[in-house]
Amino acid sequence: MNAQEKIITRLNQNLHICVGLDSDIEKIPKHLLNYNEPILEFNKIIIENTYQFAAAYKINFAFYEKYGAKGFEIIKQTLEFIPDNILTIADAKRGDIGNTSEMYAKAIFDELSFDAITLHPYMGYDSLNPFFSYKDKINFLLALTSNNGAEDFEKLKTIDGNFVFQHVIKKTNEWNKNKNLGIVFGATKIEELKENINSFYDLFILLPGVGAQGGSLDEVVSVFNKNKMNNYLINISRGLIYSDDTINFGNFIKKIIIEHNELIQKIDI
Amino acid sequence: MNAQEKIITRLNQNLHICVGLDSDIEKIPKHLLNYNEPILEFNKIIIENTYQFAAAYKINFAFYEKYGAKGFEIIKQTLEFIPDNILTIADAKRGDIGNTSEMYAKAIFDELSFDAITLHPYMGYDSLNPFFSYKDKINFLLALTSNNGAEDFEKLKTIDGNFVFQHVIKKTNEWNKNKNLGIVFGATKIEELKENINSFYDLFILLPGVGAQGGSLDEVVSVFNKNKMNNYLINISRGLIYSDDTINFGNFIKKIIIEHNELIQKIDI
Repeated sequence: MNAQEKIITRLNQNLHICVGLDSDIEKIPKHLLNYNEPILEFNKIIIENTYQFAAAYKINFAFYEKYGAKGFEIIKQTLEFIPDNILTIADAKRGDIGNTSEMYAKAIFDELSFDAITLHPYMGYDSLNPFFSYKDKINFLLALTSNNGAEDFEKLKTIDGNFVFQHVIKKTNEWNKNKNLGIVFGATKIEELKENINSFYDLFILLPGVGAQGGSLDEVVSVFNKNKMNNYLINISRGLIYSDDTINFGNFIKKIIIEHNELIQKIDI
Repeated sequence: MNAQEKIITRLNQNLHICVGLDSDIEKIPKHLLNYNEPILEFNKIIIENTYQFAAAYKINFAFYEKYGAKGFEIIKQTLEFIPDNILTIADAKRGDIGNTSEMYAKAIFDELSFDAITLHPYMGYDSLNPFFSYKDKINFLLALTSNNGAEDFEKLKTIDGNFVFQHVIKKTNEWNKNKNLGIVFGATKIEELKENINSFYDLFILLPGVGAQGGSLDEVVSVFNKNKMNNYLINISRGLIYSDDTINFGNFIKKIIIEHNELIQKIDI
């Protein structure tokens, strides 16, 4: 199954939650500290309890790289717990000159076998194309991000009246020859989502920011429903994986993701 | 010695070459393949032969991450070969929401003990501030990069008549309260360098693109000399480290970097 088949299968089952594995030793349930690899055990339990209900998993590289070489091993072992028919996203936000991006693409797609990656668009086409050339993978370019700093550069207005992030969306569509591109759009930016959703076409949309960052699941889903679009993934990290710290946290998280899915089903336009 | 002291000491000795360790198993001298860790041996020989003449070392993460956990170990071991009084730059081009950037900062500055990092500005202030808060480190924000793709977004013109990259330079100056910021500016963009150098003030300038990418050492140095500025590092990677593939490549590279330094000394305004 290539990345497109994996994601489309789940989207067609009305599954839209991307589980963000921002796994932090200081926040995981304390009883896990008795294990040899507490974070790996945490990820394993999260995955076991969510894989039937999740549309994708997103691994936030920062939380693993801080452990150096060991962190890389934990990423690899975590990926082994994720069933092969579910999309895995490397939230690594890469982007560099061509020959360097080639190396990053090898690291993420070949060495680690991720299905998808997040990319910084700043350096433009030739910094991204080495990723785009993996036709069976999905590349999510940062467009409008969920944080306040989005105002600094992403929302600079250009002389044609468009914001910088709107240029990124436009170019991403132009570059989408292999139907393997998507964008990251902050779930915290509902007004901008409403105003720009008609420019998304067949890009895959990854929306972070629900939960800890204040974005609303209902509002995001309503906007997509209203536009009869289902090509979106709503990432939830902290708001889901740390929702319980007891020995039964896995069951609790299962309950929460099921509730999220039920909410998504129920939301009327 | 903090990062600022390291870099200023070398700059004041008129040393400006940053040696880029884009070390690729397919390009290193073939005899090194007999070693257990060919890339580590390659880096060691490069460092032994250049440390008296280099202003800094830049490690391009992509070339190491493609080896996963092992790559991280090679980075760590390479750093041990670099004398403690020379600036080390993690060319990792990071940038993410605040709590994630905090983790990346820990990975690069605490776990790996680099002196400096390259950052993607796209997501704005709160994505960068976790790095800025390390006052004894140096953060290089991408402004105008050396590749063709710089035209796509970096050179979008905004309604105030400035390009996006000029906004990045302006903001980086505003954010430089701790005198720990710099920018990346492509050595391939000489006209833009001339036009913008007056906006650099006391930022540290890292210029990639000399050599394989076509930038000219002479031209870059002339522009800085003309403006009586010495706060610049010229990165050379492929053009230096692969300049010889014999068993004596170390000596050859030493000769080349000395020649570069002599050229820099000689260049008249």
